[in-house]
Amino acid sequence: MIFASDNWAGAHPAIADNLVAHAQGYVSAYGTSDLDRSVERRLSEIFEREVAVFFVGTGTAANSLALASANRAGGVVFCHREAHVNVDECGAPEFFSHGARLSPVDGEHGKMAAARLKAEIRRFPPEFVHGGQPMAVTLTQATESGSVYSLEEIETLASIAQSHKLPLHMDGARFANALVSLDVTPAEMTWKRGVDLLSFGGTKNGCWCAEALILFDLSKAHEMHFLRKRAAQLFSKSRFIAAQFEAYLAGDLWLELARHANAMARRLAEGISASAESRLAWAPEANEVFVILKRELAARLQQQGAVFYDWPVPHHLAGSLTENEGLYRLVTSFATQAEDVDRFVAAC
Amino acid sequence: MIFASDNWAGAHPAIADNLVAHAQGYVSAYGTSDLDRSVERRLSEIFEREVAVFFVGTGTAANSLALASANRAGGVVFCHREAHVNVDECGAPEFFSHGARLSPVDGEHGKMAAARLKAEIRRFPPEFVHGGQPMAVTLTQATESGSVYSLEEIETLASIAQSHKLPLHMDGARFANALVSLDVTPAEMTWKRGVDLLSFGGTKNGCWCAEALILFDLSKAHEMHFLRKRAAQLFSKSRFIAAQFEAYLAGDLWLELARHANAMARRLAEGISASAESRLAWAPEANEVFVILKRELAARLQQQGAVFYDWPVPHHLAGSLTENEGLYRLVTSFATQAEDVDRFVAAC
Amino acid sequence: MIFASDNWAGAHPAIADNLVAHAQGYVSAYGTSDLDRSVERRLSEIFEREVAVFFVGTGTAANSLALASANRAGGVVFCHREAHVNVDECGAPEFFSHGARLSPVDGEHGKMAAARLKAEIRRFPPEFVHGGQPMAVTLTQATESGSVYSLEEIETLASIAQSHKLPLHMDGARFANALVSLDVTPAEMTWKRGVDLLSFGGTKNGCWCAEALILFDLSKAHEMHFLRKRAAQLFSKSRFIAAQFEAYLAGDLWLELARHANAMARRLAEGISASAESRLAWAPEANEVFVILKRELAARLQQQGAVFYDWPVPHHLAGSLTENEGLYRLVTSFATQAEDVDRFVAAC
Amino acid sequence: MIFASDNWAGAHPAIADNLVAHAQGYVSAYGTSDLDRSVERRLSEIFEREVAVFFVGTGTAANSLALASANRAGGVVFCHREAHVNVDECGAPEFFSHGARLSPVDGEHGKMAAARLKAEIRRFPPEFVHGGQPMAVTLTQATESGSVYSLEEIETLASIAQSHKLPLHMDGARFANALVSLDVTPAEMTWKRGVDLLSFGGTKNGCWCAEALILFDLSKAHEMHFLRKRAAQLFSKSRFIAAQFEAYLAGDLWLELARHANAMARRLAEGISASAESRLAWAPEANEVFVILKRELAARLQQQGAVFYDWPVPHHLAGSLTENEGLYRLVTSFATQAEDVDRFVAAC
Repeated sequence: MIFASDNWAGAHPAIADNLVAHAQGYVSAYGTSDLDRSVERRLSEIFEREVAVFFVGTGTAANSLALASANRAGGVVFCHREAHVNVDECGAPEFFSHGARLSPVDGEHGKMAAARLKAEIRRFPPEFVHGGQPMAVTLTQATESGSVYSLEEIETLASIAQSHKLPLHMDGARFANALVSLDVTPAEMTWKRGVDLLSFGGTKNGCWCAEALILFDLSKAHEMHFLRKRAAQLFSKSRFIAAQFEAYLAGDLWLELARHANAMARRLAEGISASAESRLAWAPEANEVFVILKRELAARLQQQGAVFYDWPVPHHLAGSLTENEGLYRLVTSFATQAEDVDRFVAAC
Repeated sequence: MIFASDNWAGAHPAIADNLVAHAQGYVSAYGTSDLDRSVERRLSEIFEREVAVFFVGTGTAANSLALASANRAGGVVFCHREAHVNVDECGAPEFFSHGARLSPVDGEHGKMAAARLKAEIRRFPPEFVHGGQPMAVTLTQATESGSVYSLEEIETLASIAQSHKLPLHMDGARFANALVSLDVTPAEMTWKRGVDLLSFGGTKNGCWCAEALILFDLSKAHEMHFLRKRAAQLFSKSRFIAAQFEAYLAGDLWLELARHANAMARRLAEGISASAESRLAWAPEANEVFVILKRELAARLQQQGAVFYDWPVPHHLAGSLTENEGLYRLVTSFATQAEDVDRFVAAC
Repeated sequence: MIFASDNWAGAHPAIADNLVAHAQGYVSAYGTSDLDRSVERRLSEIFEREVAVFFVGTGTAANSLALASANRAGGVVFCHREAHVNVDECGAPEFFSHGARLSPVDGEHGKMAAARLKAEIRRFPPEFVHGGQPMAVTLTQATESGSVYSLEEIETLASIAQSHKLPLHMDGARFANALVSLDVTPAEMTWKRGVDLLSFGGTKNGCWCAEALILFDLSKAHEMHFLRKRAAQLFSKSRFIAAQFEAYLAGDLWLELARHANAMARRLAEGISASAESRLAWAPEANEVFVILKRELAARLQQQGAVFYDWPVPHHLAGSLTENEGLYRLVTSFATQAEDVDRFVAAC
Repeated sequence: MIFASDNWAGAHPAIADNLVAHAQGYVSAYGTSDLDRSVERRLSEIFEREVAVFFVGTGTAANSLALASANRAGGVVFCHREAHVNVDECGAPEFFSHGARLSPVDGEHGKMAAARLKAEIRRFPPEFVHGGQPMAVTLTQATESGSVYSLEEIETLASIAQSHKLPLHMDGARFANALVSLDVTPAEMTWKRGVDLLSFGGTKNGCWCAEALILFDLSKAHEMHFLRKRAAQLFSKSRFIAAQFEAYLAGDLWLELARHANAMARRLAEGISASAESRLAWAPEANEVFVILKRELAARLQQQGAVFYDWPVPHHLAGSLTENEGLYRLVTSFATQAEDVDRFVAAC
């Protein structure tokens, strides 16, 4: 009953096996092998246009390099207050961007509210040198709250970004989970709606270590080669990432894995909804379920081997928990078993 | 006949297999799993003292974080002119250190000459604020020229560093090759001779992607956790690195692989020494062989499928090549086959 | 009727004259002259202990260098939400600190509330690498709201900082105004209450360009020499700053100028309090007066040549202004004339 | 007999007086006053085209901001080995450029040799990500060796820079000295010969603290406003710099002062040439004279109150000094008196 995070799972067998399959033989290093090239081409197909692909080791690296490519002196990046870049990356975006600032934008369910984004950007008028200058907007899809931006919501944020000439980055650490949740194409969820840069995550969805920064604007690719190398993210045996992605994308394995994780989340949600004692904090849209449990129950579950984290109670929920209740996050993954879900639900 | 670089090889089967063996099941993320801990303990045993271990994705990351931990304003790092940090890391050490400078030190066979190191450091007197201040010394073992510092040479450089209170870093991208070449223990080649920080490389010697920054001074470990995370080098599924190292270190596989690579280099060297037409530029001490070939012959070998790079001619050799000759680097690895070596030699 | 800012005034005649007095003759450069030394000694006397003094060109430089000297990877600096470092320095503190973040702390009247500071620091538990690590606390004295921290308030914040081993910095761009407002000694308002670093501003109080970063912890002085030089803030003809400070401090001119500015602020405040139409937003404690005026009146005053800025309405005042009213800031300085104040008041 | 440096002098009376003249009255802050604007316009007239002017506090700031505006990841700046940016700025250019490297170019008399510059740039082929990428070329006019690039030499370096699409920066800390030495116009010595950015120094030639970064490419001006502010180089009472420049430029005072300094250098040089015991190391072209003196004589002169520094002996001179001789630098300035020169010469 491990619901701690999708990164507690290991690697999907097909992905681990493909690494072994590519272990032998010599290929050219630093991302120049045929395998690297073929995965890059496959991503262009998947996104229905030529894209520039940069394999990196971590989602934090992909996010931070994306923002670094938009760098301006005194630059300000707009993101949701709970975004991974703002809360969980130890200042990497700021470091990669030489001191750019993250300006948190509020909004329900982990999504930036359009009006709040506009208001935040307006705090930095173009000619007022003292405050700094807007530099980029970044949204997380699926969000840290397990919600998913609709295509219309993405388009709205993109148009705000565009009106200020700011690139729009999407942190897609859980890109596949959001994609199958919306049941749209990768192109529809990104560049067709105004996304300029994408952190395309594989690690949380069944890879060992496979992240790709995808640029829809090819004019930024030249500089990105140097940004990535300077950030120590150009891997000599790059094929070890390419091989993971090859298996991940083959036969739409990635979508299948995400559908499984999301289904497990729904199963959890439905089970808990039916419980007398426990309840959902809000409905999940991807693979993260937020539940309100009696603290006593949570402790008992943890004694029984369940692993999950408690979560800060957002303002809009503040009044609706009793003293004895806590908010908890349950994350499912490609590896989650229905039996574990059912055991958990049964105990709730 | 691939002698381009040791990073053109893939992964040793035992290492690839161990990744598969660890692919299933849940473990805690970000380097906190039992497997991570056990590999860290193993490294403490190997180095005969408690060390702080930081897994990272690339040798450049290990080197750059090591130097970053010594950071000073206006800091100057002393390294050999041909060192990887100086020539092949696209400014990563400077970026991680917020603009520290690398001050190249000359010396034969890729090794800093002690007198030159002293003279370079003396260029930055402690109270002369305009020039900046010394910050660290870094040496490469084995060097980019395929040579190996003797223990005495390491100790000499270490005592110079210590006399200026500078930490001594060792770039051990080819640590195992140097170690078996000297036939000493890891402790003898590092902290017992005054090395403070070590980039312990596994990638070039049979791993996919396994590098560890090892601190002998535990007081620097706390800050390093944040430096690594901020540099986007803390991997969520850290066990994928730990599993590689587990197999790498088990039963001294790492030493066996390095011995093989070095033996292949010697075999190459002996063959070429015996050739009428071709000759060694200097004797190899690890797994890199530098040879002087007729350009015509080099081209013919490359047409026959041999892959290797030409190399800038160092000053001390300048006069000893004819117009028709070039200097070439041949790198062997755990994967090099004796037959390939022999075919190459036969054609020389 | 110029109440735009205290930096719209020029230089006090005694200060300008002292520059002329020191214009001739040769002295050693880069802060090593007798004049530099004597001003440094004078500051040690004024602060009743040996201090390390670093002349710099701007308050932003002093603040940013102070924070840079506390630098940690993933570092977080705590400051009031409205603090100059957070709002008006275009990311300089982040740039000088290689990407450290500013974490805004709320509190009434421009002062950090102790409970909020504690809560903010607690958001970054020491071993949680993902969030970053606390690095410093900085308070502004006098604040951007024209208020002044009492000695007890400073002590309370200092003890919170100390309990987390964080240095406490004071941005004293308006140090003199705060000092005469509290009627205490420089020592009492700083190190005796736990302040570790001070930006000692002269520019806003009658100098041309005279700021000093003062370190009470001498062990940080060595590195600061390099931090300052690297930041391009070491002036060759440093005596041009020293000469300003010499005149500024001589005969307590600085206190006299601050008393004048504060008295002008009080005169403004008293006049407006007596007005039927206009009112104070809150009582001034230094040289900044915040008033609520009918917008129409404000516009009329501006047409008559008054210069002052409107100001964002803080939350706690939100309900207390009518639609026709605005919040405005009036700043007095050493150069403010009573007649101008009276003309302004008469028109209110 | 102060020949230590031109920054040991104070300020010219006309410049000091103009500061006093502008000390009173209110003007808008941060470089927006009428005086600021009028000096900017005056500089456009002097350079015979519209230029963007950024007042800063130090030459190091001007140089570092110029290079920062050319910033690229893994960027490499080419400069003479003895250039101020390389030797005397404590890593400020690297810091402002987030870790860009300076690649020293050799050449006689402090001037980059065109062939060496070409060779250095060629070390960084455009698609070789490991080495980094060329980013800018910077030359010093007059040089640290007291020589002056001819217009043809500037043009040659500019065409090399342009062929690699690199901006050309001129460090003009002694711009006026070079200008009157060549007897050309500011336009001829800069943009007409391919200079893109200029550090226009006033401090060494009679100002207190007056440096301007001048951009000939106006498209870079917007970002520079933020770069300067973020670097803590935007002065609130900016008129204190503007007032200096106003007096400096009025009636061509700046050229007159430079002519005087150069004449004093020639007088020194001629005197020493005529000496039996002492001799010139090379002929001065601006206001720095390099002389070879018996060490004993140098010590005696210093005892008599002469102040000057010894200087590292360049390679091409290595053989031409006896053991008893040293190389010394003598710098003249606007304040140098003929009598002091003559006394010095008489003692040689």
